[in-house]
Amino acid sequence: MKLTILGCYAATPTKYTNPTAQILEIRNHIFLIDCGEGTQVQLRRSKVKFARIKHIFISHLHGDHFYGLIGLISTFMLLGRSADLHIYGPKGLKELTLLQLKLTKSWTSYQLCFHELESDAPEVLFEDEKVTVTTIPLNHRVYANGFLFKEKEKERKLNINAVLNYEIEKCYYQNIKKGKDITLDSGEVIPNSTLTFDPPKPKSYAFCSDTVYFPKIVSQIKNVTVLYHEATFLDKHENLAEKTKHTTAKQAAMIAKEADAGQLILGHFSTRYDGIDVFKEEAETVFENVVLADDGKIFEFE
Amino acid sequence: MKLTILGCYAATPTKYTNPTAQILEIRNHIFLIDCGEGTQVQLRRSKVKFARIKHIFISHLHGDHFYGLIGLISTFMLLGRSADLHIYGPKGLKELTLLQLKLTKSWTSYQLCFHELESDAPEVLFEDEKVTVTTIPLNHRVYANGFLFKEKEKERKLNINAVLNYEIEKCYYQNIKKGKDITLDSGEVIPNSTLTFDPPKPKSYAFCSDTVYFPKIVSQIKNVTVLYHEATFLDKHENLAEKTKHTTAKQAAMIAKEADAGQLILGHFSTRYDGIDVFKEEAETVFENVVLADDGKIFEFE
Repeated sequence: MKLTILGCYAATPTKYTNPTAQILEIRNHIFLIDCGEGTQVQLRRSKVKFARIKHIFISHLHGDHFYGLIGLISTFMLLGRSADLHIYGPKGLKELTLLQLKLTKSWTSYQLCFHELESDAPEVLFEDEKVTVTTIPLNHRVYANGFLFKEKEKERKLNINAVLNYEIEKCYYQNIKKGKDITLDSGEVIPNSTLTFDPPKPKSYAFCSDTVYFPKIVSQIKNVTVLYHEATFLDKHENLAEKTKHTTAKQAAMIAKEADAGQLILGHFSTRYDGIDVFKEEAETVFENVVLADDGKIFEFE
Repeated sequence: MKLTILGCYAATPTKYTNPTAQILEIRNHIFLIDCGEGTQVQLRRSKVKFARIKHIFISHLHGDHFYGLIGLISTFMLLGRSADLHIYGPKGLKELTLLQLKLTKSWTSYQLCFHELESDAPEVLFEDEKVTVTTIPLNHRVYANGFLFKEKEKERKLNINAVLNYEIEKCYYQNIKKGKDITLDSGEVIPNSTLTFDPPKPKSYAFCSDTVYFPKIVSQIKNVTVLYHEATFLDKHENLAEKTKHTTAKQAAMIAKEADAGQLILGHFSTRYDGIDVFKEEAETVFENVVLADDGKIFEFE
């Protein structure tokens, strides 16, 4: 599981910061999460292959989270894309995108598949044999969702030395990997635990931005491997966070602690502060394992 | 007259190039011409004061010329703007912008004044005592206009030593600056040319992008001080230019020559070539005074 931060700053533009966008690579999928203005250039800088992006998840319709989408859609077209592109986001995104394409006379050469969201309850957006993606309903000034990406349990690992101790035909190996015990011709039952190792624990990633401090999400993200949570403000601006429906670094850490998250990544920083280390310092008073997002930063989770 | 190139490359994004946007400063006005994705960040980098932008001219509705507009409009709001903002561009821009503001629940704190264009004949978009701005109808895949910015004739300059040779009351100075002769009490007529110097010659700037080679514009831009003309391709790709309704560097130079332009600035470069010097070399075979636009470059025209 690998996370590339393309942008992680709040809306007001500066010379060298980018609004929200990130790439999650998980079990051979490349998921784009949010798509603020300039995302396509950030993708180029991070050397992400455009053609590998097949699913885009938009948290909410504030410009710093989706104004780069139409540019990316247009560029896919310029690059001659043919593969379907799935876009998951709040209702309205389809109407807006189609109007943009109509006005620019730029119909796409590929299928645009919109999955518009309106529900206030978690919804499974994507599922295959390896991964599920579910919405995490958030609480912001406009309708907003986070996204929970979960690996499915992998097959058990064959302990080949143990297996070779017995006369087991290879055609049974698949069953062993699936966790089944083996009955030998002699009638002896070999328990699966003798023949296999535990598979690596499935990893999970929760993206939660933008939202006011919203403990309701804790049950859904319990024990998540990595939690990305917005921390637009510091504790001294808690009133402002409440008013604008954002979170402070301390509150983000409280969510991580309650959820027993493995690690907390902070992002969506307001540019009003001198640097971003202050966010980490504040969060660490509540939760131990805190790291800071920053544009261009790559996290690999082993 | 001062021109700041914010972006001057064609649509396909690269790590370090920006789509079209430029700032023309002329007689205390700051005009923004086109507004490709990332323009607000480029404005920050060029240290342009956002509040001074009151008029935005959009040439045509292709993404690389206007996808940055909504982000800029939103940022003006975040910055607490109160002054009116005038936007001149093809019909459709208003509908699209209003839909974006509606979906993002982001009504502006200032008046957005749309001036939508549909005419195929030149139209005066803006006029005050110092400057006029007129459309230059172009020929592209979608409805497109260039823009002609013209300084008005300035007042004549008082030759104060000459004036003091005569008994002329100060209340007549304004008439002298306006070019009038003076009749002394003695009945003697002093011709204006004795009392004044010629004012500096009014400057003009023509922005022509995007368009196929389109000599029809020559009469309108005759003797322009500075011509910015798109040169997406080189002569060897003339077929491609024709097909996509763009211009080659050579053709842009032919327009400059026919129009007796003072200087030609080339821009809107395709990123398919190794560097941009080749555009200058090609244009110089036809027209002498050629310079290249580049992102962040500033031209001062004395």
